[in-house]
Amino acid sequence: MTAGHVFIATSLDGYIARADGGLDWLPGMGEGEDAMPEAEDHGYDAFIAGMDGIVTGGATFRVALGFDPWPYALPVMVVSRAMTEDGVPEGLRGQVRIVRGIADARAATADAGWRHAYIDGGQVITGYLAAGAIADMVITRVPVLLGAGLPLFGALPGDVRLRHLGTTAFPSGLVQSRYAVA
Amino acid sequence: MTAGHVFIATSLDGYIARADGGLDWLPGMGEGEDAMPEAEDHGYDAFIAGMDGIVTGGATFRVALGFDPWPYALPVMVVSRAMTEDGVPEGLRGQVRIVRGIADARAATADAGWRHAYIDGGQVITGYLAAGAIADMVITRVPVLLGAGLPLFGALPGDVRLRHLGTTAFPSGLVQSRYAVA
Repeated sequence: MTAGHVFIATSLDGYIARADGGLDWLPGMGEGEDAMPEAEDHGYDAFIAGMDGIVTGGATFRVALGFDPWPYALPVMVVSRAMTEDGVPEGLRGQVRIVRGIADARAATADAGWRHAYIDGGQVITGYLAAGAIADMVITRVPVLLGAGLPLFGALPGDVRLRHLGTTAFPSGLVQSRYAVA
Repeated sequence: MTAGHVFIATSLDGYIARADGGLDWLPGMGEGEDAMPEAEDHGYDAFIAGMDGIVTGGATFRVALGFDPWPYALPVMVVSRAMTEDGVPEGLRGQVRIVRGIADARAATADAGWRHAYIDGGQVITGYLAAGAIADMVITRVPVLLGAGLPLFGALPGDVRLRHLGTTAFPSGLVQSRYAVA
């Protein structure tokens, strides 16, 4: 099976985007003083270099569609019951595939021979956690409370115990912790 | 006015208790292997030594009532619309006072001459944040996902920007970050 890996930023109150998908609160996504010091490396490039592909949710996919250029070099599977392949922009066909649920996604990544998948989007991450399919998570806390939005974590069938691997605090105020699923 | 200070532990998914108030997932509150190494000092004693009193919510107060002995040496104000002074156990009268809302609590702590109040309970913390009445927060992340429970943070009238003051990772896997409200 493919091992699932999470690398995500959240507000201190656990949101990965505003209710409308907005990411303006992320350092580097805002204007002026909110811009991230360019020198601050949070390890995304090193993380993504070890992945074979990306499994994401419909909401996170739609946010990614808003970026120009398209942010991913890797193949993407979008877990969505509402979307069809017709909803994928022409330029991304072949790179983006729609699957119907977590079980389908896991079967498809295994069939594709992916050893490591970057699991993104709150609902997909929670579904993978519920399935016991996440190996580790890198969670970066942004020092802001949003009060509402799309949550990173949702309901689970039971406790998921984690093992803390390490934490780094950055000059920008971001705090990044790495956990293995126990 | 009284400055509000938060010192609280949460699961990685932002819950401060299970839906029934359960705290069994907190290190030191469980059995056997879950017990916290006694030597690990998370700074609670030093924190509480600087406080003049405690403002808490009804749910957190009811959890505290379950502890024997009563865990607080400081006077407590309980923010609750449902409770009355009659609901306070006899042994705690004089030490525990019921107030009706955040504004009442703030007026009462100011009248009582409190300079620093320990603000506890998710709804009360959120209410104080919404009122701009929190000076700083010490948030300790326990490496477990509960999937459900009583949340630390709730809805806010707008973003609350924080300034990261420092983070300590403990051998037990707890990660404690300190923030000032910006």
